[in-house]
Amino acid sequence: MAVDYGPPLEPRGPVPYTPDTKNAPPLRNRKEPITLEYLHEMALKVRNWGKWGPDDEIGTLNYATPEKVAAAAKLVRKGKTFPLAIPLGMDGPQTGNRGRNNPVLLMRHSGADAYSGLRDYSGIRGADDWIVMPLQSGTHWDSLAHIFYIDKMWNGYDCREVYSWGAKKCGIEKTGARASGRGVLLDIPRVKGVAALADGTPVTPEDLDEAIDKQGVKVGTGDFLIVRTGQMQAYQERGTWGTYAGGDAPGLSFETAEWLHKKEVAAVATDTWGCEVRPNDAPGIFQPWHWVVIPNMGLTMGEIFDLKALAEDCADDGVYEFMFVAPSIPVAGAVGAPVQPVAIK
Amino acid sequence: MAVDYGPPLEPRGPVPYTPDTKNAPPLRNRKEPITLEYLHEMALKVRNWGKWGPDDEIGTLNYATPEKVAAAAKLVRKGKTFPLAIPLGMDGPQTGNRGRNNPVLLMRHSGADAYSGLRDYSGIRGADDWIVMPLQSGTHWDSLAHIFYIDKMWNGYDCREVYSWGAKKCGIEKTGARASGRGVLLDIPRVKGVAALADGTPVTPEDLDEAIDKQGVKVGTGDFLIVRTGQMQAYQERGTWGTYAGGDAPGLSFETAEWLHKKEVAAVATDTWGCEVRPNDAPGIFQPWHWVVIPNMGLTMGEIFDLKALAEDCADDGVYEFMFVAPSIPVAGAVGAPVQPVAIK
Amino acid sequence: MAVDYGPPLEPRGPVPYTPDTKNAPPLRNRKEPITLEYLHEMALKVRNWGKWGPDDEIGTLNYATPEKVAAAAKLVRKGKTFPLAIPLGMDGPQTGNRGRNNPVLLMRHSGADAYSGLRDYSGIRGADDWIVMPLQSGTHWDSLAHIFYIDKMWNGYDCREVYSWGAKKCGIEKTGARASGRGVLLDIPRVKGVAALADGTPVTPEDLDEAIDKQGVKVGTGDFLIVRTGQMQAYQERGTWGTYAGGDAPGLSFETAEWLHKKEVAAVATDTWGCEVRPNDAPGIFQPWHWVVIPNMGLTMGEIFDLKALAEDCADDGVYEFMFVAPSIPVAGAVGAPVQPVAIK
Amino acid sequence: MAVDYGPPLEPRGPVPYTPDTKNAPPLRNRKEPITLEYLHEMALKVRNWGKWGPDDEIGTLNYATPEKVAAAAKLVRKGKTFPLAIPLGMDGPQTGNRGRNNPVLLMRHSGADAYSGLRDYSGIRGADDWIVMPLQSGTHWDSLAHIFYIDKMWNGYDCREVYSWGAKKCGIEKTGARASGRGVLLDIPRVKGVAALADGTPVTPEDLDEAIDKQGVKVGTGDFLIVRTGQMQAYQERGTWGTYAGGDAPGLSFETAEWLHKKEVAAVATDTWGCEVRPNDAPGIFQPWHWVVIPNMGLTMGEIFDLKALAEDCADDGVYEFMFVAPSIPVAGAVGAPVQPVAIK
Repeated sequence: MAVDYGPPLEPRGPVPYTPDTKNAPPLRNRKEPITLEYLHEMALKVRNWGKWGPDDEIGTLNYATPEKVAAAAKLVRKGKTFPLAIPLGMDGPQTGNRGRNNPVLLMRHSGADAYSGLRDYSGIRGADDWIVMPLQSGTHWDSLAHIFYIDKMWNGYDCREVYSWGAKKCGIEKTGARASGRGVLLDIPRVKGVAALADGTPVTPEDLDEAIDKQGVKVGTGDFLIVRTGQMQAYQERGTWGTYAGGDAPGLSFETAEWLHKKEVAAVATDTWGCEVRPNDAPGIFQPWHWVVIPNMGLTMGEIFDLKALAEDCADDGVYEFMFVAPSIPVAGAVGAPVQPVAIK
Repeated sequence: MAVDYGPPLEPRGPVPYTPDTKNAPPLRNRKEPITLEYLHEMALKVRNWGKWGPDDEIGTLNYATPEKVAAAAKLVRKGKTFPLAIPLGMDGPQTGNRGRNNPVLLMRHSGADAYSGLRDYSGIRGADDWIVMPLQSGTHWDSLAHIFYIDKMWNGYDCREVYSWGAKKCGIEKTGARASGRGVLLDIPRVKGVAALADGTPVTPEDLDEAIDKQGVKVGTGDFLIVRTGQMQAYQERGTWGTYAGGDAPGLSFETAEWLHKKEVAAVATDTWGCEVRPNDAPGIFQPWHWVVIPNMGLTMGEIFDLKALAEDCADDGVYEFMFVAPSIPVAGAVGAPVQPVAIK
Repeated sequence: MAVDYGPPLEPRGPVPYTPDTKNAPPLRNRKEPITLEYLHEMALKVRNWGKWGPDDEIGTLNYATPEKVAAAAKLVRKGKTFPLAIPLGMDGPQTGNRGRNNPVLLMRHSGADAYSGLRDYSGIRGADDWIVMPLQSGTHWDSLAHIFYIDKMWNGYDCREVYSWGAKKCGIEKTGARASGRGVLLDIPRVKGVAALADGTPVTPEDLDEAIDKQGVKVGTGDFLIVRTGQMQAYQERGTWGTYAGGDAPGLSFETAEWLHKKEVAAVATDTWGCEVRPNDAPGIFQPWHWVVIPNMGLTMGEIFDLKALAEDCADDGVYEFMFVAPSIPVAGAVGAPVQPVAIK
Repeated sequence: MAVDYGPPLEPRGPVPYTPDTKNAPPLRNRKEPITLEYLHEMALKVRNWGKWGPDDEIGTLNYATPEKVAAAAKLVRKGKTFPLAIPLGMDGPQTGNRGRNNPVLLMRHSGADAYSGLRDYSGIRGADDWIVMPLQSGTHWDSLAHIFYIDKMWNGYDCREVYSWGAKKCGIEKTGARASGRGVLLDIPRVKGVAALADGTPVTPEDLDEAIDKQGVKVGTGDFLIVRTGQMQAYQERGTWGTYAGGDAPGLSFETAEWLHKKEVAAVATDTWGCEVRPNDAPGIFQPWHWVVIPNMGLTMGEIFDLKALAEDCADDGVYEFMFVAPSIPVAGAVGAPVQPVAIK
């Protein structure tokens, strides 16, 4: 077969990544910017490719072994359950930014039809409903197929494993059995004595260590680390979501990647839209920490967690560890999915 | 104000329910049909309206108290987690029947865009996705707003509390904190020594008692009762969903309503599309057991649970009780919602 | 059958309409408010029920006979075609107000998949797409099932003919063959010598007559009357949609209902979100003109028409009449649908 | 910048196309198969790249000039309008094949809410609706962004101009002003004296010439050529869509590409799912004619046109030419879109 279609398109792909550094804002939190070189150095430092075999699709969730789950169950004393998801609806935080709207509920039929006798032909009076939603518009887990490192994803897979028909590797449906274990809340603003961290405030490894120390709790292998910044609660008290979705935010600093890698946590979740501090002083790079932890470390990430009630209870009884069960709904091939996470104390 | 718009429409609403009994098929499982009168008698017998106050929206889930959760956690020994949901995707069981399609995943962007350099302007390479789905198309809980009793719903609320913009009462988002506790599996086909119950086979109170007896497990107040019929597994082994969604099925007999009422279970779930046996020999009435248990008893119901792996493990170790955590995603105003239920042993 | 379900819900339906007049803003354009009584008087005055038989579902579109179409074709001289629809996309005018979002395009697959070789297994390289949209989010026709008069719709049909599964009567799919004829543009701001009418400005019967007179064009039976207010263009020039969708607007005054009735137009369309002036000084009534013209007169209404290019051409050549072809896509049971209307001169 | 990410993925893109010829069925209509080489030869023969300038996005629609529209209007005599679209709804022809479902209408609110008084707070009683649909699930035009030729599209554009956020080039919204002109129906089964062509029957250039001759009509530059096979009507009479969507079908033979090129038609439409004959005896190539006419010739293609009533009228009066107006709804960036085409005689 030797059909000559003429010269191929340039540049030949996979297309190299060239960050746009021209319009970079001034540095905000750092003395030196996060460059592609520094980012790559960190990526290699925390990279777990192959650690759980060449076919692994769940990364650090592997740390959450059955033994960890069994141990976590022993943390349950009061039987008090804290659901950590915000309601999914049109009044959610999304603005259309980065292509995400809020969920839309549409009724297939409703009580009005019942009252009006309009579905009696079906032999029952009831209501039924549909939803249209971006899978990451509310409280959710990112799957390891959510972020690519240039042209590769977790475990070295080709990014093309995620095409328009869904993720053939690392879809969120693979995580179900490993989304439970010991949860630990680090309540940074409470430790700092403020209501909420200001937008743009990095949570550094030192801040995490300080919280561990002051709260008297340990973080170790297989834990689900939940970091509270207070940002969601601040917006809730203001009564508007403002720029919560995709705007500036307090969050994990770039260097926490290494800290989390050493701690061998199973996953991390926060009460912000994107876990990491924004802006992150990385010219031409939207979320440098994401680049490192998702495709390189294989870290599962939870976002938009509502931590108010849990944090208050932890402050009350001084117990910052709990059983944590949070399997997202298993949308086949999805790169993220909504979840109702529960902390059980 | 005395505008005369002319004679009002007839019949005046709320429109009375008149079952179409003309085209009723011959009786299949019963000697006498379930009539509206008998159904109403049962409805009154199991009715829990007011039991948890006039503002209650979650019914029997109230039985699943924190004490029950704490006790359930003590059942965890191996730390083995069983996710019970089927994958959500276009190859699911729905056929369009009763207005339900299978979930459709659509990518906002994908690894193909990344490979092609098409989203580099956003400063990151990643994938994002949307879903369009009937909320009860996969493994799900019905909320108490799902079924009406003539013109009333759970706790005596007006069915019009559920209108086209969603459920103002009894939406699924109200249940989050109470969807955990002790789970008990009753594996009816294993007790009967068959691979699966045939379509149309009723699971009677006697069958449930037999399973309790033979399995050596108790069912009591606040338990999440999970009944396996084997139907899903039979279809899975056949490699096609056939008429699984909305067709004939084995399932709970009408009289189990009273049995469940006495047991004070928190919720019931099965591996079938609709929990109750179909057909149910109730001329002009599609699902008589639904009429009784949802709006009258206030029973939360789980459907399309995949029980294969759990049932095998229970058969292996002879332990049919476990910690059960199953909060559905909190779609505001929804009358049902997908869930990834987990049994932890 | 004598089941006693207890006392029925109150009030018995159909529920009477009781406008909330407590929070009415001060009158803006009128000396006397539009009351329910006055509205009802107008409704009876313009009511066409039965005029085209008891089974009619298209109302005044009946005026657009084949003879009118044949005559309209003779108006074509230059062969110049003016498409009057705005693009359907996420940057449209909707804000979520009244439950309407902007259309969302999602690709089933795309050129990125092609470039990456990911759909070659299908034997072709191509792109395919889905849309999720409120049917009236862009340029559209309302069907006669869109607005009810208390509990009745066009031709006296019960409003319950439009239930959650769609419109059994007067769905937009019924209109296809009758959405063509002679179009006439009345360019009110050009006649008044202003760029655009201010929000809240009523277009009265006198204004319409003035435009007819100054433009030297006639309006008669079966015409498609297109009224330009300049509002859309004003927003387009400002570069933001602002409150275009559902906010204050210039538009047809309440009394134009009678004028349109006498003219026997087939349909009316404007460059605003809702055709009629807003606010319309009708305490407790959102759109009094809609109440009258859609369910009573049976008038088909077009909204969000982009009239800039057409209006400029008409001003240039002084010809304000043209062939008009505008069948909306035939969504079965829909109460409105998008259309790409074309004026051909 | 010299970050070394390690070896790039292989093969480097754009990925070459390698047809799977192993599982090719036996030839059905041809003596020799359509090979990639023959296909490429035809592609070059009919290629119009650059003909309308380097920025053109509508291809052969350019032939439909205003002069052609003006001439077409003179064909209108009776004023009879034939809408050619099938209703858009859940009972449409799609099966999920190639990722296309049928349209789903969901009501935002309905007459049942009105009857029940549930939306009175909004100041009006009405209904509103949403749709979820693949844009090519019903009667539609393909845009020139729908099919790629290896890694290029119409006019030589890079296929990556169509990414997951839509088509930056050749979106359907570009075609509005040029979707009108003279229509010609060639009714092949009527010419052949059969009710419908059998699935798999090619319509050859000779068949088209025969129809032109027997019908006494000409086809020339700028015409909208509408070819009837009778397949849709055959399915309609059978009462089921069967394999209409994506299965075997009668349709245009591969060699008609050259015929259409010489005739300089503006567009072509048929009553089948995909215009061309299926199977088309091209091992490893799903639709070889699509490969040639869309990206190379720049031909706009209409599919799933309902031609029954038009064909009967043409047979009655012997007039096979008419004014044709068919602008699809302008979904921004879409690679196809629904349309209600009208033929006016």
